[in-house]
Amino acid sequence: MIVQKYKDMLGRKSVIRQLSEFATARGAEIGYENVFDFSLGNPSVPVPQKFTDIMIDMLQNRDPMELHGYSQSLGIPSVREKIAQSLNKRFGMNYTGNHIFMTTGAAGAIAHAIRCVTQPGDEILTFAPYFPEYQPYINLSGAVLKVVPANVENFQINFEAFEEMLTDKVMAVLINTPNNPSGMVYTAETLKKLADVMSAKEKEYGHDIFLISDEPYREIIFEGIDAPYASSFYPNSFSCYSYSKSLSLPGERIGYVAVNPACTDAEYITNMCGQISRGTGHNCPPSIIQLAVAEVLDLTSDLSVYETNMNILYKELTSLGFECVKPGGTFYMFPKALEKDAIAFCEKAKKYDLILVPSDSFGVEGYFRIAYCIDTEKVKRSLDAFRKFVKTEYKFAG
Amino acid sequence: MIVQKYKDMLGRKSVIRQLSEFATARGAEIGYENVFDFSLGNPSVPVPQKFTDIMIDMLQNRDPMELHGYSQSLGIPSVREKIAQSLNKRFGMNYTGNHIFMTTGAAGAIAHAIRCVTQPGDEILTFAPYFPEYQPYINLSGAVLKVVPANVENFQINFEAFEEMLTDKVMAVLINTPNNPSGMVYTAETLKKLADVMSAKEKEYGHDIFLISDEPYREIIFEGIDAPYASSFYPNSFSCYSYSKSLSLPGERIGYVAVNPACTDAEYITNMCGQISRGTGHNCPPSIIQLAVAEVLDLTSDLSVYETNMNILYKELTSLGFECVKPGGTFYMFPKALEKDAIAFCEKAKKYDLILVPSDSFGVEGYFRIAYCIDTEKVKRSLDAFRKFVKTEYKFAG
Repeated sequence: MIVQKYKDMLGRKSVIRQLSEFATARGAEIGYENVFDFSLGNPSVPVPQKFTDIMIDMLQNRDPMELHGYSQSLGIPSVREKIAQSLNKRFGMNYTGNHIFMTTGAAGAIAHAIRCVTQPGDEILTFAPYFPEYQPYINLSGAVLKVVPANVENFQINFEAFEEMLTDKVMAVLINTPNNPSGMVYTAETLKKLADVMSAKEKEYGHDIFLISDEPYREIIFEGIDAPYASSFYPNSFSCYSYSKSLSLPGERIGYVAVNPACTDAEYITNMCGQISRGTGHNCPPSIIQLAVAEVLDLTSDLSVYETNMNILYKELTSLGFECVKPGGTFYMFPKALEKDAIAFCEKAKKYDLILVPSDSFGVEGYFRIAYCIDTEKVKRSLDAFRKFVKTEYKFAG
Repeated sequence: MIVQKYKDMLGRKSVIRQLSEFATARGAEIGYENVFDFSLGNPSVPVPQKFTDIMIDMLQNRDPMELHGYSQSLGIPSVREKIAQSLNKRFGMNYTGNHIFMTTGAAGAIAHAIRCVTQPGDEILTFAPYFPEYQPYINLSGAVLKVVPANVENFQINFEAFEEMLTDKVMAVLINTPNNPSGMVYTAETLKKLADVMSAKEKEYGHDIFLISDEPYREIIFEGIDAPYASSFYPNSFSCYSYSKSLSLPGERIGYVAVNPACTDAEYITNMCGQISRGTGHNCPPSIIQLAVAEVLDLTSDLSVYETNMNILYKELTSLGFECVKPGGTFYMFPKALEKDAIAFCEKAKKYDLILVPSDSFGVEGYFRIAYCIDTEKVKRSLDAFRKFVKTEYKFAG
């Protein structure tokens, strides 16, 4: 019979999806160029030309049976090895290809990581504000997601709350730095303290507690910001990556789990991921995409537009009186709303064709997310709408 | 802590994988062209040129942000619609795009189908001989696979055993036609009787029993064989498809679930699949592969080589005294071994550089599988090895 659990999930549309649909509908009325759609985290710059050139070259020159043939279920060995070497060079790690498991993006990476280290009923902690999809990602695996309240001062970690919630039931801690939605990057100090707390609790409880680091925004870092590599601070750690943002390839679905060679049973983890895949029907990413990405590992799209957009918005919004922690990376910012009810705030913003996402679904009240992965020209045009919105609705002087 | 369940699965290498590794090692000794490797089901003919041309054209001419951008989680609407129309035309169905859920191949399709209609503890029946990966596919979902003994006379269905095993606990029946490993195609008579039995039991038990039809070999059908479309016989049915074999694209991982519009809650199923994906980390196949495949839906690779190979082997083996049900499709055949112990039989064959897979892991004793997706020239050269093997080891006159 039809399984009610999944049927019951239908109809509960995500807030972001609803807003994006509103933006599309409004765009049909007044022209999409006049809707300041800050709802979706979709890259706004093209893939590096080299990726396209390599794809074409392979299609023109390689034996199609070899190019499109079955690949090993953990990923193509040469691709895994190249990723390991690239990470070692950049972050001083000592991965081999055997520590890399290819996935169809970060969602696939997290799905495997959590199944490696949690059983149904085990708890996983994450920190507000957090990406709302973590709820289904984790809860449908049988593990239970618990959210540590935000440190709203700077969106680093609320360690007091964390230590209280890090009970014997917790088998993994899921972090996301640079962070969606806050744009905040965890400092070395934060990561060091996180590792110290987790190590101490591992000893106290006598079991491993794994750090799962979700890093799709790792390459989008702004000037002057140091973005330390989480896995280098803590041995029991998995780095979950997606090329969606750094190479502007979200539709092609490619990423990986990198298993810290210093973790418990490090030599088994990627093979265990292969076993997990057999049950979930996950397949490693397509051969041609794996092979093409392996040739552009140390490139990114031109990501500078995101910093340009951030600076324009940050300057205008703070001068309008918004409180906002300045993002260190990503293409998001997370200012405080001008009233306690962020949902009401964002609803009012719609009148000015500003599509903003209220913070509630990210686990914090009273803030909103701006996804500024849009043309700079449109960001500039949006400033007038922000000014009108704030002056009219909130009588701000700005 | 590391989850023991998955760790325990390591080290249990599949028989097919072990044989394939033996073939590779032996090939390194005597030249791979001298090893008659019939172990792996990997297509031996190239993808249609049109697929390659379309891929190149999209890469050269489409806006990369649109081409590689996020696609809807159920698949690209235009692609889903084209697949529906193609199936309707070929099989007289009335799918719309809303009944098609894009997956990363048949494994992903089956993973979603079983989660839609079974809860942990529910039973799923399949029929020997069967593809051994069904065990992890199903058992790791929490459902329980039970195997109906083979009808060795013709590898259609053993209905007596089936009716006995079709208890109130069974929520789904998984079939595979054309069949791996037997090459057998279910007749209209078989499918009609299967549907009748299942319908009667649905009434008796007062709950749905779904037919999940795994059809990656649907396009590889030999002369004179009628290959009826299983879903047209039974309303509560899902057709699970992969383009791996028909387009020789196994590494690119693309397929779908087609939900019978006449099934219970048909309008919800593909959306439920989308919810299931959120939990398993499945992602729809890459945009560029979806778009390219949609342009070659009614093409296949040149599949005629498989029939050529089958005829050569069938003629020789039967004249050597083998009992074999003549395949109606696929690139497999499943003759009876010349001794009861198929494992011992295949072990002896290795001395003649014949790599054959014993039937035990397919749920039948005393047979062996030949995967004849290799060059015809090599098939011809293998005949002498078969003759020597049979004459020397079994003193056959052939």
